[in-house]
Amino acid sequence: MEQLFCYEKLSAFTKNIFIKIGCSEQDATTAATALLSADLRGIDSHGVARLTGYVRLWEAHRANTKPNIKIIHETPSTAVVDGDGGLGLVVAPYAMQVAIEKAKNVGTGWVSVQHSNHFGIAGYHAMKALEHDMIGIAMTNASALVAPTFSIERLLGTNPICVAVPAGVEPAFVADLATTTAANGKLEILQRKNLHAPEGWIQDKEGNVSTNPHELKSGGALLPLGGDREHGSHKGYALGAIVDIFSAVLSGANYGPWVPPFPAYVPMPENMPGKGIGHFFGAMRIDAFRPADDFKKHMDQWIQRFRSAKTVEGQEQVLIPGDPEREFEAERMQRGIPLFKSVAEDLKYLGDRFGVEL
Amino acid sequence: MEQLFCYEKLSAFTKNIFIKIGCSEQDATTAATALLSADLRGIDSHGVARLTGYVRLWEAHRANTKPNIKIIHETPSTAVVDGDGGLGLVVAPYAMQVAIEKAKNVGTGWVSVQHSNHFGIAGYHAMKALEHDMIGIAMTNASALVAPTFSIERLLGTNPICVAVPAGVEPAFVADLATTTAANGKLEILQRKNLHAPEGWIQDKEGNVSTNPHELKSGGALLPLGGDREHGSHKGYALGAIVDIFSAVLSGANYGPWVPPFPAYVPMPENMPGKGIGHFFGAMRIDAFRPADDFKKHMDQWIQRFRSAKTVEGQEQVLIPGDPEREFEAERMQRGIPLFKSVAEDLKYLGDRFGVEL
Repeated sequence: MEQLFCYEKLSAFTKNIFIKIGCSEQDATTAATALLSADLRGIDSHGVARLTGYVRLWEAHRANTKPNIKIIHETPSTAVVDGDGGLGLVVAPYAMQVAIEKAKNVGTGWVSVQHSNHFGIAGYHAMKALEHDMIGIAMTNASALVAPTFSIERLLGTNPICVAVPAGVEPAFVADLATTTAANGKLEILQRKNLHAPEGWIQDKEGNVSTNPHELKSGGALLPLGGDREHGSHKGYALGAIVDIFSAVLSGANYGPWVPPFPAYVPMPENMPGKGIGHFFGAMRIDAFRPADDFKKHMDQWIQRFRSAKTVEGQEQVLIPGDPEREFEAERMQRGIPLFKSVAEDLKYLGDRFGVEL
Repeated sequence: MEQLFCYEKLSAFTKNIFIKIGCSEQDATTAATALLSADLRGIDSHGVARLTGYVRLWEAHRANTKPNIKIIHETPSTAVVDGDGGLGLVVAPYAMQVAIEKAKNVGTGWVSVQHSNHFGIAGYHAMKALEHDMIGIAMTNASALVAPTFSIERLLGTNPICVAVPAGVEPAFVADLATTTAANGKLEILQRKNLHAPEGWIQDKEGNVSTNPHELKSGGALLPLGGDREHGSHKGYALGAIVDIFSAVLSGANYGPWVPPFPAYVPMPENMPGKGIGHFFGAMRIDAFRPADDFKKHMDQWIQRFRSAKTVEGQEQVLIPGDPEREFEAERMQRGIPLFKSVAEDLKYLGDRFGVEL
């Protein structure tokens, strides 16, 4: 059912497709690197499987492959970036770099982005801060699939938050999480395997508990982290709301139920209050707080203490956020990236169409 | 079982107790206001019920009521504050004010705090930003009661996060949440009422599901938001970890299992890597991103859209984070603050001891 592709080959292919739809060489490289970081890190739902989706957005004139990305407002520690309808995979690296430059100057940098598109995985962008001895933060809103606590309407996206923190001898701490019980990608896996979802992941269109992974197609919704009120879903809802506000109300992008959908065949919402989708990035220079070496020594101690905690029976180790993704990355860089047959066929079709070899 | 006390009376009493243990008039006012904001907002576990606990910390020489609070490192947008062992109720307002001043100057301010004590509710501190048309952020670590996913050891506190966002005609959005399924205060309520806890809140000392609200006394633990791995507890764990790192690893406070306990009779952890407990505060000036009036108009639209969402049967309205606490505050300011008989007796005993009338 799966076929292995080496990273370099998949990367060159992806870059060439982006060039074919009008990206500059540099933007195409940036976009391909950001997109494939998802495949490397095991978040298959957000990687090259979406390449066709990005192409369709371009065809529908919903993504601008020659954007004039610019800062439209700034202070020493903040900026608002207008993505000019560009691919989030290109807009986000620009904005994160602005945050990093501001952090170099005044300790921290915070950038809210309007008029962008889907940016791949939050982790890729947040981790850009690590090489500068900075903490990186990335979040984005997305089209509404999630029902707030007590709601039967879908008003929030899966709105992920990533926080990446450098360590010393230990690998970095990288927490990258959708603010829902389970990300939409996990439902897609259950759909493929014809399995039920656990209770607490989804509700049907009336707000009843459902275990049908196809429920979203008939008006159901993903649930905020926590699942139901008794288990703290109001907290997951609040976290998703914070991501929405920081990404879109601060920047002038669309929010709540007005965020543009990723599938190009889904009609745009009516009466949209902003431009495109929104992101939010932060960079905090470690030595704006304490010497980076001190900090890293303590991060190592933090990580080692948690990793060596006594485990429940049947589990080998307490994981540090970022552990599973790092293991995927090491393995896939060496052995290749496995793609479902349907995804590989989709890419070959795309390659044939644009005259790009896979 | 409960007795009503008017806010002014309880506030004067609390302030006078703080003066009796050595606080300056000004610090005592600050501490009483911060502490009682919990009672007003309905978070009874963090309010005046803890006054005796603070006094005991002072008696055990674990809280300094004449602290020399100061900035020990700073950049234009950041600072580290040394609380000098002071009451968190006094240290936190100082640090939040530093964040606000920095935001006035360079758009945002971010302050990590070492050598502090418990600061009451995060919401009180974050909401200080609202009157300046800023977004306020507050978090703190706390002594370890929470087991990370797969762990049977308690390594994190309930580590709350608050984000307060100003709106226009609508009341502010104030999300104030422990990063656990349920805060410890909720267990205390179940204990008093002799009720079981829902599954997903706690585990026993072997890591098995438990519904016994007394489980923490026999080595059990609170669970991170999500409850178990299948329902995203690794996300709650990651959020609690982020709070711990921002509050303590950035500042030089204690983290993980080394955070000092609130009850003065519990021995201090061995080999503590830092000083006291840690907090983290942020302030972001709205007009460092876009004109405050534009932002507020869109926040109003955000709030109105969510509040008017179609609800599941049996629920009247989708709530906005902060709604329940605001209703409590309005009611209790007018009608009085209800205290359990045991809490009222405890306060009277404290008053008798220090010659302060309740």
